[in-house]
Amino acid sequence: MSLIVQKYGGTSVGSIDRIKNVAQRIAKYYKEGHKLVVVVSAMGDTTDDLIEMAEKINPNPEPREMDFLLSSGERISAALTAMALQNLGVPAIALSGKQAGIITDNTHTKANILKIEPKRILEELEKGRVVIVAGFQGYELQKGDVTTLGRGGSDATAVALAAVLKADLCEIYTDVDGIFTADPRVVPNAKKLDFISYEEMLEMAGQGAQVMQIRSVDLAVTHKVPVIVRSSFNENSGTLIGEGKEVETKQKVKGIAHNKNIAKVTIVGVPDKPGIAHKIFAPLGEKAINVDDIVQNVSKDGITDLSFTVPEKELQKTIEAIQEVVKEIGAKEINYDNNVGKVSIVGWGIQSTPGIAAKMFGILASAGINIEMITTSEIKITCIIRRDLVEKAVRALHDGFNLGGEE
Amino acid sequence: MSLIVQKYGGTSVGSIDRIKNVAQRIAKYYKEGHKLVVVVSAMGDTTDDLIEMAEKINPNPEPREMDFLLSSGERISAALTAMALQNLGVPAIALSGKQAGIITDNTHTKANILKIEPKRILEELEKGRVVIVAGFQGYELQKGDVTTLGRGGSDATAVALAAVLKADLCEIYTDVDGIFTADPRVVPNAKKLDFISYEEMLEMAGQGAQVMQIRSVDLAVTHKVPVIVRSSFNENSGTLIGEGKEVETKQKVKGIAHNKNIAKVTIVGVPDKPGIAHKIFAPLGEKAINVDDIVQNVSKDGITDLSFTVPEKELQKTIEAIQEVVKEIGAKEINYDNNVGKVSIVGWGIQSTPGIAAKMFGILASAGINIEMITTSEIKITCIIRRDLVEKAVRALHDGFNLGGEE
Repeated sequence: MSLIVQKYGGTSVGSIDRIKNVAQRIAKYYKEGHKLVVVVSAMGDTTDDLIEMAEKINPNPEPREMDFLLSSGERISAALTAMALQNLGVPAIALSGKQAGIITDNTHTKANILKIEPKRILEELEKGRVVIVAGFQGYELQKGDVTTLGRGGSDATAVALAAVLKADLCEIYTDVDGIFTADPRVVPNAKKLDFISYEEMLEMAGQGAQVMQIRSVDLAVTHKVPVIVRSSFNENSGTLIGEGKEVETKQKVKGIAHNKNIAKVTIVGVPDKPGIAHKIFAPLGEKAINVDDIVQNVSKDGITDLSFTVPEKELQKTIEAIQEVVKEIGAKEINYDNNVGKVSIVGWGIQSTPGIAAKMFGILASAGINIEMITTSEIKITCIIRRDLVEKAVRALHDGFNLGGEE
Repeated sequence: MSLIVQKYGGTSVGSIDRIKNVAQRIAKYYKEGHKLVVVVSAMGDTTDDLIEMAEKINPNPEPREMDFLLSSGERISAALTAMALQNLGVPAIALSGKQAGIITDNTHTKANILKIEPKRILEELEKGRVVIVAGFQGYELQKGDVTTLGRGGSDATAVALAAVLKADLCEIYTDVDGIFTADPRVVPNAKKLDFISYEEMLEMAGQGAQVMQIRSVDLAVTHKVPVIVRSSFNENSGTLIGEGKEVETKQKVKGIAHNKNIAKVTIVGVPDKPGIAHKIFAPLGEKAINVDDIVQNVSKDGITDLSFTVPEKELQKTIEAIQEVVKEIGAKEINYDNNVGKVSIVGWGIQSTPGIAAKMFGILASAGINIEMITTSEIKITCIIRRDLVEKAVRALHDGFNLGGEE
């Protein structure tokens, strides 16, 4: 008998019939004797619909009220999923994030989980019930107000619960079969991976692979939670995300990640002095803007340029946030470009493997794609390129590194 | 400066535009310097839609999960209403029933308010905020689970809050102009009343006047909360429900109430012994079935018949609940009739005023309507008649007692 945490995404619980199917799947596990904690997202487009209503009423609503509003979506799907299980004769109970003991900071609409007090969950498991938890939400301790966890919040709920409950497995059910060598919508012969290491997944997620957000992978690697990403629409085995089997996989490109929703910001003429980078990025951190790749080249005459990427939709906010400090430090100007994208190759040890970076740049050159910025980490190499060339680049790299399966 | 509790029903907050209108109205009061606590129902058909989804998934869902589901509707409208006020520059905060401190028993889907601990409400009022409370919900103390208050639950929330907060006024906003001498859909020249006493309103509500549920009137009379029922779609002054001005209104028929959604149950051949009535009605109480009028005539040879009415949709449940006990007490059989309705005349002291009952029976006779059962209280006389004659009876009585205004 295992303790399994499952998470079903919005598409998986997108209709009455799909909720019934999900209940069938949970019931099967239950009948095999497993203890189950199930995290659900809001049904289909519920969250978007609620956001749309809110925006029609108030273009700039207070984040606390936004959370109060949005948290309803997951409560509804949690209640319906519990009812569907009860209908199959499986004892089940729906809990809000607060009842599940998920305590967050008070960054409304983008809260981070601080800790989990799973007293109620354990009580209900003890009674033999399947516990359905409304994903994407928790509460802050100061007022006890509901918070939401931002993008990927339901995945984060599931992985964090799996960590705290010391679950044997965390299954993330979604509408794709697992993690692929590249986005199958871009590369038709992309291959599903049976296994990917935490670190590789971290880079894939960080570089825009849509299946799982970086924060959840981060949680999984920190707490060594084995995660399986799989489809709720078939019985395929999915992709296991776990401890890296370095020997096997090292020095190989595992997959191609890409992201078209970024913008590039360059601060020109930055005095190269200690503490400058902190001054620039502190206001972005305060506004919870996710700064992604940062590139700063060697300075010339004590002056350098500093570039970084942010999600495209946060460009405006980013410029506003740094305008003041850019003046203050005496930099020359801010340039931005919201017509870029990025493509990365990901795999254990590729940075330190001679020739892999060169091969990547060669493949892009052959495809006639100009590289505008480069950043690397131990297990990924990222190039910033024109946005309209991103898909071409992904296909060229997928081919060039021979990642394809049968078409 | 007054403390005013307002309640807006589902129709009043039924769309984005209507929520904006409601916010305008609240903002006006706010700018006049009043402190405001505003209870909102779920938008339009939200609750019905949620119930429909639940029933498709599980025809017999557990009440706890039903409450978990349904309580979302009012949270959504509360959040949106708060946002609409914020958009007008009025500080506002949305609170769930739990955050508003509304403590109930644990009769899920039909909970009763036990007490209110308005700490958070008072804090927020102190900060100068308009407090928007999600109606229709509270929580039980054993588990802290959310409960819903059943029909008329948002009205009850508003009146109970007004009582606890010692509000100067409780305004119930709805889609009609106030309390009428009869249902205007049945009697075109029905007149809006400027004032009705608590007790008269109690009878009007109890006899099926749709505007306000009996439980809320009950709360109002117990705590002497002055209530105004008025429309959120115009500026008309509505109807004040308050302490009876007996001298003025005594011995007059104030209005005609009717209800077509009832069923009549008769237990035939009941031994006329002490404790029998308790035995019969105890199981109905346990199942929270609202038994309405009860009629038991004098017995003959120690045997009597006992009749009562229940909401039509609870007839099945009623029969099941009493089957056992009817056998046990040795009664002959149960008859039921789900093709009846009732019509009542309501007014202070009419029972003890000679001739009024006779006049009512005469009017019905002239209209060719047969009376099947009669019950009376200090301020109302009710006749059970065929359902298809109810509207005819209402019109005849409204005419006969001269209640009409201009057509």
